[in-house]
Amino acid sequence: MTDAENNKVMMRLANHRDSIDRLDAILIYTLGERFKHTQAIGKLKADHGLPTADSDREAKQVARLQHLAKSAGVDPNFAKKIISFIIEEVIRHHIQCKENSRTR
Amino acid sequence: MTDAENNKVMMRLANHRDSIDRLDAILIYTLGERFKHTQAIGKLKADHGLPTADSDREAKQVARLQHLAKSAGVDPNFAKKIISFIIEEVIRHHIQCKENSRTR
Repeated sequence: MTDAENNKVMMRLANHRDSIDRLDAILIYTLGERFKHTQAIGKLKADHGLPTADSDREAKQVARLQHLAKSAGVDPNFAKKIISFIIEEVIRHHIQCKENSRTR
Repeated sequence: MTDAENNKVMMRLANHRDSIDRLDAILIYTLGERFKHTQAIGKLKADHGLPTADSDREAKQVARLQHLAKSAGVDPNFAKKIISFIIEEVIRHHIQCKENSRTR
């Protein structure tokens, strides 16, 4: 590669990376908003003695996201893995919330 | 809980879940857009013989997202886990892309 070609490649790489950084900020802030809702649900469940996990709801969420993934050009298996990963974190929060409400 | 109280709780739960479903759609479509850029990077790297992984860039991404996570109310450790999970998937794509370009 000549220096000019190399510069062109590096500039294209930097452009894509700038977009990725902006998209990552969207991901993190969207997760923050999502956790606000799951935390409210955790409190509701703890206050009213509802079970922390809901396997029916989880199965519906996974199926819906796998469907959305196809139209968004995302591997549905990856979508399933990432939503399961997020749900696990949420259940961990809910259990913590239940334990905190018991010791209050 | 009386029936009226139960209905109120169920309605609040449904409201939060509706928001979560909309936020999940944002997450999936943002990931789709993110993969579009990482795939373009994978192709650039494969076409110009650049290495698939870039540990400096990854370390910077993780540090930046952990910083963003704090201001978004997201656990920085969770942010680190999720971005590492996404980067792993991206590297898997890049390796696939490199192999495809070799067999072309």
